[in-house]
Amino acid sequence: MANETPMPLTADPDDGQAPPATTRRATVAALESLLYAPIPVLDHGFVRVIDYMGDDAAVVQGARVSYGRGTRKVSQDRGLIFYLMRHRHTSPFELCEIKFHVKLPIFVARQWIRHRTANVNEISGRYSILDREFYIPDPGHLAAQSTTNRQGRGGLLEGEEAARVLAMLRADAQTTYDHYELMLNERDTGETIDPARQGLARELARINLTLGTYTQWYWKIDLHNLMHFLSLRADPHAQYEIRAYADVMLDVLAKWVPLTCEAFREYRLGGLHLSATGLAIVRRLLAGEAVTQATSGLGKREWTELMAALARDATPAA
Amino acid sequence: MANETPMPLTADPDDGQAPPATTRRATVAALESLLYAPIPVLDHGFVRVIDYMGDDAAVVQGARVSYGRGTRKVSQDRGLIFYLMRHRHTSPFELCEIKFHVKLPIFVARQWIRHRTANVNEISGRYSILDREFYIPDPGHLAAQSTTNRQGRGGLLEGEEAARVLAMLRADAQTTYDHYELMLNERDTGETIDPARQGLARELARINLTLGTYTQWYWKIDLHNLMHFLSLRADPHAQYEIRAYADVMLDVLAKWVPLTCEAFREYRLGGLHLSATGLAIVRRLLAGEAVTQATSGLGKREWTELMAALARDATPAA
Amino acid sequence: MANETPMPLTADPDDGQAPPATTRRATVAALESLLYAPIPVLDHGFVRVIDYMGDDAAVVQGARVSYGRGTRKVSQDRGLIFYLMRHRHTSPFELCEIKFHVKLPIFVARQWIRHRTANVNEISGRYSILDREFYIPDPGHLAAQSTTNRQGRGGLLEGEEAARVLAMLRADAQTTYDHYELMLNERDTGETIDPARQGLARELARINLTLGTYTQWYWKIDLHNLMHFLSLRADPHAQYEIRAYADVMLDVLAKWVPLTCEAFREYRLGGLHLSATGLAIVRRLLAGEAVTQATSGLGKREWTELMAALARDATPAA
Amino acid sequence: MANETPMPLTADPDDGQAPPATTRRATVAALESLLYAPIPVLDHGFVRVIDYMGDDAAVVQGARVSYGRGTRKVSQDRGLIFYLMRHRHTSPFELCEIKFHVKLPIFVARQWIRHRTANVNEISGRYSILDREFYIPDPGHLAAQSTTNRQGRGGLLEGEEAARVLAMLRADAQTTYDHYELMLNERDTGETIDPARQGLARELARINLTLGTYTQWYWKIDLHNLMHFLSLRADPHAQYEIRAYADVMLDVLAKWVPLTCEAFREYRLGGLHLSATGLAIVRRLLAGEAVTQATSGLGKREWTELMAALARDATPAA
Repeated sequence: MANETPMPLTADPDDGQAPPATTRRATVAALESLLYAPIPVLDHGFVRVIDYMGDDAAVVQGARVSYGRGTRKVSQDRGLIFYLMRHRHTSPFELCEIKFHVKLPIFVARQWIRHRTANVNEISGRYSILDREFYIPDPGHLAAQSTTNRQGRGGLLEGEEAARVLAMLRADAQTTYDHYELMLNERDTGETIDPARQGLARELARINLTLGTYTQWYWKIDLHNLMHFLSLRADPHAQYEIRAYADVMLDVLAKWVPLTCEAFREYRLGGLHLSATGLAIVRRLLAGEAVTQATSGLGKREWTELMAALARDATPAA
Repeated sequence: MANETPMPLTADPDDGQAPPATTRRATVAALESLLYAPIPVLDHGFVRVIDYMGDDAAVVQGARVSYGRGTRKVSQDRGLIFYLMRHRHTSPFELCEIKFHVKLPIFVARQWIRHRTANVNEISGRYSILDREFYIPDPGHLAAQSTTNRQGRGGLLEGEEAARVLAMLRADAQTTYDHYELMLNERDTGETIDPARQGLARELARINLTLGTYTQWYWKIDLHNLMHFLSLRADPHAQYEIRAYADVMLDVLAKWVPLTCEAFREYRLGGLHLSATGLAIVRRLLAGEAVTQATSGLGKREWTELMAALARDATPAA
Repeated sequence: MANETPMPLTADPDDGQAPPATTRRATVAALESLLYAPIPVLDHGFVRVIDYMGDDAAVVQGARVSYGRGTRKVSQDRGLIFYLMRHRHTSPFELCEIKFHVKLPIFVARQWIRHRTANVNEISGRYSILDREFYIPDPGHLAAQSTTNRQGRGGLLEGEEAARVLAMLRADAQTTYDHYELMLNERDTGETIDPARQGLARELARINLTLGTYTQWYWKIDLHNLMHFLSLRADPHAQYEIRAYADVMLDVLAKWVPLTCEAFREYRLGGLHLSATGLAIVRRLLAGEAVTQATSGLGKREWTELMAALARDATPAA
Repeated sequence: MANETPMPLTADPDDGQAPPATTRRATVAALESLLYAPIPVLDHGFVRVIDYMGDDAAVVQGARVSYGRGTRKVSQDRGLIFYLMRHRHTSPFELCEIKFHVKLPIFVARQWIRHRTANVNEISGRYSILDREFYIPDPGHLAAQSTTNRQGRGGLLEGEEAARVLAMLRADAQTTYDHYELMLNERDTGETIDPARQGLARELARINLTLGTYTQWYWKIDLHNLMHFLSLRADPHAQYEIRAYADVMLDVLAKWVPLTCEAFREYRLGGLHLSATGLAIVRRLLAGEAVTQATSGLGKREWTELMAALARDATPAA
């Protein structure tokens, strides 16, 4: 998922690091070893775990408060976590929390921020000069517009068309950033360009930057809402660029709360939601009826998708 | 606040309009006459009221559920609304709701979306081609970076520096949009540019657009959270461009819920929050003591601001 | 669902009523005729619709802002609403809002309030004297504790045990309320009992009331979150007493937004969520394999539930 | 605040405890020593800190992400935290989180749960049998209803009236709990009372319990919202019984994030909010004008309260 080329990190790896200390809080060794280290994503982005609260046992502990003494002996941790996930008892998962430092292009940040149940501190273009870093798609992800799905990607652009697109993206990112500095009258190093000029206010100059410019933020979220985010953003329908981040965070999830992650894959990522009509079709098929799209009650696209999900041929011989 | 030049509206004024009908719901005549009409903001933006729920009487009604029969006769509506605002009893204000259609530059949308207690539907650059419209500051708002306040604006840029800045903003907006169309291989009219090319996926091409590009959304919020938004965004510390929207919405507030708006001005917009030290200083001054910054317990900036708020000279003669 | 006996309503049906007026907002005739009228629930409770914002067309309108001009002509309203529901595009449903006045027992209110994405104004026992009204289960709902499901109900209590339970519930509700009045030194009519006494503070006296005592509130929620509430509370796993309210509100939903309600039944209420293992089992069954619990990868309870959902015998002959 | 009598704790002090471990996360020694230990509140309640994320330095770190490199060297931590609190820059405070285990009477829980921006897992009366523990006010807090403030307490009840109130509260709590066990046909020890009976469903039997019955929950909240909770609940207007919890949690706050707590006291707890009219009055007084209530523009109560806050005599000699 992450780019192979060396990544010019601007995150100061000392930022926010606490010295090792003894704690009586729930601690996850596999996550401790990940702390603070930037995991590369896309061409200049990263995800760093800054802090976390709780573990699989904290989910269990929260659930046992709800269920009280009665269930205490009965359930094993794994069984209880699977039970909670299956029955959508979400509140015990809300008792764990994780905090990330993320560097990401602005257009990805604009999708991401739609998830409102998180806490965010983003670098401010009113105060600070943004870095000269822009997302330029890898040629392997330079997709054409899908002709069948208005929000999807089709095959890859190739040859001259690909080359022209990349050239335009690169040139415009550089030019708009060059002009950003000129308008500011200041380099991103803090150096003044022309002492005779005043420089445009930062909050205005940033207007000239493109949506591919990288920003960064601290992002803190509870475990339940993290899984909701991942179920939408690690999904094939999500745009590739945000999925790249979600995939990395799914790996973090597996290290942090392995039982919860396993249950999440069983009941959310790997499952299938049948509609009322879809369920009726499955029942009819299991009863031996030869259902076709025409008799299914489903439209063509929904029928095709259901047959694909059930690993069946959508057009059985008449 | 709004620009004087004729505004090329892209909002179809028929969108979402219901025919007049009879209702038994709370209705506000002054707001009915505003419905659907775009109120211009900045150079291409607007605010349109699409729908609303409740009025001043609905706030009162909600509060009376809380207080029950006991207070029913006692309070007059105005007195009760002022009481609620003064004592920060916020929940009755949450019982009213308003829905706007807003056209705004992306950099403004990025500040705006930080208010999480609202419902948003934004035009998607994955599905749609964005309009060729960019925010270019009016020369009267082309401010220099403040030299004393990292997030503030200083005086206006003038002469050649202003001209160069405007030229760069205009040229880069046009160029990046021209290239956006070329990469898409499609005009914003839907016309294909070169039938031999595939066109880059919309979700990628939009990366090339600048933060001054206009977007639009439906935005729905309850009255309490609208006032919280306005208290932050109609404030002198807010960036001018978002304040332009907040000022228009404050006018809408006054038409919708005039008593609530009056109380909001009395207890929120027009008030002053004294810190513990600030309160002690006011008491000492009222008791006749000649307090100076040195004896105040405040730092220089806080002292200066307090004296300004109290309409006093910050450096009385020794 | 609702009780047949005449209901001693304490809601003043004139409360909060606006006179008929003309509006240009979206209006739903079927809901207008329901406005303000209390729909009885349980023995003393009710649900009243006080106000609403939007309709099916407002959902469509919100979605079309997101998708922009491109989809405008293509989709029919019904198809778009079904598409949104199927793909869990929730934000257009958040653009509609409804406000209820509800009278409900405190133990139901305690479950209900766990849904945090709503606005609430509840009658305050600090200010007001609560009504002398308690929930006493109808003999037809006086269920025994389930012996197989710790949170469930088993068969009905009968005969002497039922009679003793009802007698205890009635007597304790009356006694604790009698003492509430004595401690307050005030009747719920406002009459002082003994002028020589001071009366305990209301905020303390209410401690003596039982969880069956009725309270009331205004409750306002958007359409998406209302459906989420209904999917959990109109479910057979929900406690009967809150389900009684959810069932009434589901009827309101059908009147308010008939297309949305139809899609909600198709994709939420009537569907089935298959886990990854469940999906694999369905595929194997459809491919003709004779899967048993032992070879299914599922535990016994999950297997039994899946077979029931698929309308199959859980223990096919060996 | 807490009751002096020995507290029959039902919290198992081993619950949820992790063994000491090494961590690289931010750690607060003063809070580590408090972890898991129940701090008594009221007659049977407690507050236990179960986990926390972040410290004062994490607030600073979050703010510096927003402000970027520019401010890095300039500000000292204390100054920055005070600046953030003063200017209501709340998001850096949202980057810290704390998790409590609380035992509290149901009527307190009903006030507490109104704070929606927290995560809660409460013991469920559908699954579990609640403990035989009820809040009975200490004679020192057995207040009469205020005659001037509908939601307030007046002087203490004394003598026979106090004795009768306490007797009723005690007797009704015991009786309703005795009947709860009888209806359940089960003691809180799990022992069956009469093998010939079925026992009422737990979810129904609990209806008979009073609002003074203790419940418990895990409650997790971010630092910003915790302070908002404390500003409302550690306030003299809050009911004494919830204030007892807030006061204990304010002590926890001081141990956890001492700088933030100091700023919170300076700008929130200890300050005064002047309305527009109030500010005008202060200016007039400072300018030497002899303002009276009649000329102030304020109502009588508001005038009296302002004069008290400013430590002035409300009725200066004419």
